[in-house]
Amino acid sequence: MADHHVVIVGGGFGGLCAARAFRRSATKVTMIDRRNHHLFQPLLYQVATGGLSPANIATPLRSLLRGRSKAHVRLGEVTGIDLERRRVLVEAGEGEANALEYDSLIVAAGAGQSYFGHPEWAELAPGLKSLEDATRIRRNVLLAFERAELESSPERIRALLTFAVVGAGPTGVELAGALAEISKRTLAGEFRNIDPAMATILLIEGAERVLPSFPEVLSRKATDSLEQLGVTVRTGWIVEHIEPMSIVIRAGESERQTVACDNVLWAAGVEASPLGKALCEASAAVLDRIGRVVVEPDCSLAGRPEVFVIGDLANYGHQLERPLPGLAAVAMQQGRYVARLIETRLSEGTVQDQRQVAPFRYLDKGNMATIGRKKAVAEIAGLRFSGLFAWLTWLFVHLMYLAEFQNRVLVLVQWGWNYVTRNRSARLITQPPADKRSPPDASSARSTL
Amino acid sequence: MADHHVVIVGGGFGGLCAARAFRRSATKVTMIDRRNHHLFQPLLYQVATGGLSPANIATPLRSLLRGRSKAHVRLGEVTGIDLERRRVLVEAGEGEANALEYDSLIVAAGAGQSYFGHPEWAELAPGLKSLEDATRIRRNVLLAFERAELESSPERIRALLTFAVVGAGPTGVELAGALAEISKRTLAGEFRNIDPAMATILLIEGAERVLPSFPEVLSRKATDSLEQLGVTVRTGWIVEHIEPMSIVIRAGESERQTVACDNVLWAAGVEASPLGKALCEASAAVLDRIGRVVVEPDCSLAGRPEVFVIGDLANYGHQLERPLPGLAAVAMQQGRYVARLIETRLSEGTVQDQRQVAPFRYLDKGNMATIGRKKAVAEIAGLRFSGLFAWLTWLFVHLMYLAEFQNRVLVLVQWGWNYVTRNRSARLITQPPADKRSPPDASSARSTL
Repeated sequence: MADHHVVIVGGGFGGLCAARAFRRSATKVTMIDRRNHHLFQPLLYQVATGGLSPANIATPLRSLLRGRSKAHVRLGEVTGIDLERRRVLVEAGEGEANALEYDSLIVAAGAGQSYFGHPEWAELAPGLKSLEDATRIRRNVLLAFERAELESSPERIRALLTFAVVGAGPTGVELAGALAEISKRTLAGEFRNIDPAMATILLIEGAERVLPSFPEVLSRKATDSLEQLGVTVRTGWIVEHIEPMSIVIRAGESERQTVACDNVLWAAGVEASPLGKALCEASAAVLDRIGRVVVEPDCSLAGRPEVFVIGDLANYGHQLERPLPGLAAVAMQQGRYVARLIETRLSEGTVQDQRQVAPFRYLDKGNMATIGRKKAVAEIAGLRFSGLFAWLTWLFVHLMYLAEFQNRVLVLVQWGWNYVTRNRSARLITQPPADKRSPPDASSARSTL
Repeated sequence: MADHHVVIVGGGFGGLCAARAFRRSATKVTMIDRRNHHLFQPLLYQVATGGLSPANIATPLRSLLRGRSKAHVRLGEVTGIDLERRRVLVEAGEGEANALEYDSLIVAAGAGQSYFGHPEWAELAPGLKSLEDATRIRRNVLLAFERAELESSPERIRALLTFAVVGAGPTGVELAGALAEISKRTLAGEFRNIDPAMATILLIEGAERVLPSFPEVLSRKATDSLEQLGVTVRTGWIVEHIEPMSIVIRAGESERQTVACDNVLWAAGVEASPLGKALCEASAAVLDRIGRVVVEPDCSLAGRPEVFVIGDLANYGHQLERPLPGLAAVAMQQGRYVARLIETRLSEGTVQDQRQVAPFRYLDKGNMATIGRKKAVAEIAGLRFSGLFAWLTWLFVHLMYLAEFQNRVLVLVQWGWNYVTRNRSARLITQPPADKRSPPDASSARSTL
């Protein structure tokens, strides 16, 4: 009998944990990703703000799966899934497409940024989903200070040094806190014509409080910490319009404000991969409002027990008040659960029969967000922390998670270094603003980083 | 009396050492660079081969000059120098240009790649001068293995896994050694359809031996080490033609060979910044064959004692058999010399009189090149080393140099890590080959890294 072939779409937390959870020697696993690396997304904001290098939070997928001789990695883009014939269509660049047959399929394609029906904002307000996003934000932020240093008009300087962060979930809060630290501390003493500390960091949130998914007491603590750092917190305001040098925000129906600002950073909404829609159209499954697939209690696709959807692409709401949040922990647990489920079925020889296996259960390990140096909020097992202790917990937990991805020592050293020197050494602007000597053409520009 | 204003063009080794050598409080220094960072070029090949991250070898100029309140940094491109009116023309992107007046000018604009009259090769055979170059090479090399893994034709696999390095100076030798290590060691066990160790690394050199600027005995040692690593060394061959999937090389007049090969890396020649030509056209100075300015014994421009040219842009040949080589040590010593010279003149109040000051003297600190793990060749104070001891010396000297640029601890840890794990953690392919979900447009592609 040929090996059972599991195809995994996506090398994020869900896909990677699934791939590493297979133990049977007769299971061949093929992981497909558009990137050659697994990205530790929770720390992406540190790359965007120059605290860490891209390589600190990204590890080649091949090296993460090296020891598993039955694990294959394919660099490519999944453009379609044929549920009937059990095939995945993969494009490997340059227009070539291949069909890959599976026995079991795990779709863990994740989510991208959502601009709430304003795709034109994507250009003006970059989100934070990939290393390219992070280095783009890093470049824009650092260039704003450079341009302000050369500018004479006070209005232009003010607009250049105003940074609007849209969305006060953990990413927005962490980004705003890091931007405040950059302007108040990291860049102190580095400019002669401007004072970087005069930068305005605006954190805009539509809900009535920051970190709406956290308990109210932690939202208040987070707001206090942000304001101490000099962040202007605007809850109850939504974005109405974004232009290259300004943003219009609105509170309620009547109150409107235009803020001159060159840099808008988007941390507001997510939208699941378009593969979710494709899967729902081809099956009995339902698509939710943000493009996620409503999955069965065992994370499978309705009517397709051999197909699983996990992580940010899945809407899992069984026996819960609301669907599970888009957290790494959820995706990792689902990945391991599905791998075990597939292997249990195989060992019982009943690929089509899923009644034996208990439904997926999420073990809530808590939720945390950091706000600059030495401040954080955390909720773990019903306990609520804030301040230095929460920050140390945040540090410990993130290093433990990173451990699985090989980079713990290096990140620890980099952070220790940043902490002691109060510096951020990864403050690089690459691809210079004007390069006459060797003009960047399309092909070389695409290959940077 | 207004401050004496020194303008420095270029934040490489020469410009940076000059800027940091000014001690008088009444000297205002403005450094202009197209990049916001100083780049430790000798280790660029390690970024190109995934051993180090860009931030490990690049430090923001502002942070290197932070403590000096009279030191200004301007991000911009110097597009012209008006020697008569003592003005430098700076473009800061977006088409704006400003004129900056100087009392003394230090031009340290460095050199770029030379393709010996074949500029069309630049696209096909990237050189190694900037972080963008390095990450582009890293991407191309890693993608070649990824594509070979998906390829079925043995000829295409062979072409994908053939890497031709043109030029066997220190950069070419180090690059070839690192590529051999990647294919033989780093990637071992990571692929299922190909064996990365079957990659061919071709090192092509026009001269009769590798490292032509080193003593012959060290060239032999280097060749031995390279061949042990599996590099195919071809001395006495020159490149006749490069196409997207092949390279034509020639030995003498008649022997010609076409090698199918997707990746050609250029480490063959340098060409000084076009500012050299502009300076010579406007002064009595002579331009040499590779675009360098033949300078006076005190590094000044003929007839313009207030203008200095240092580093890779200068041809300094006084009392020497041949001009000083393009080494960091030369640029650094010239930078410090010129800063001292300017301050000496100022303290004597004789800006126009240079007779008091002794001409520049280069203190030769030796020359070294590393060849993969634990192997190197070095010539220091007339002594010649090779093997492990030379490698340890290389390591020590480079860490000492890096110390000036703040990154020593981090690089040491990263190297220790790579050494112990035999891994290269910075093996990232960013900007995926095909990205349908968020198509890379010109503006976002330019801002990567």
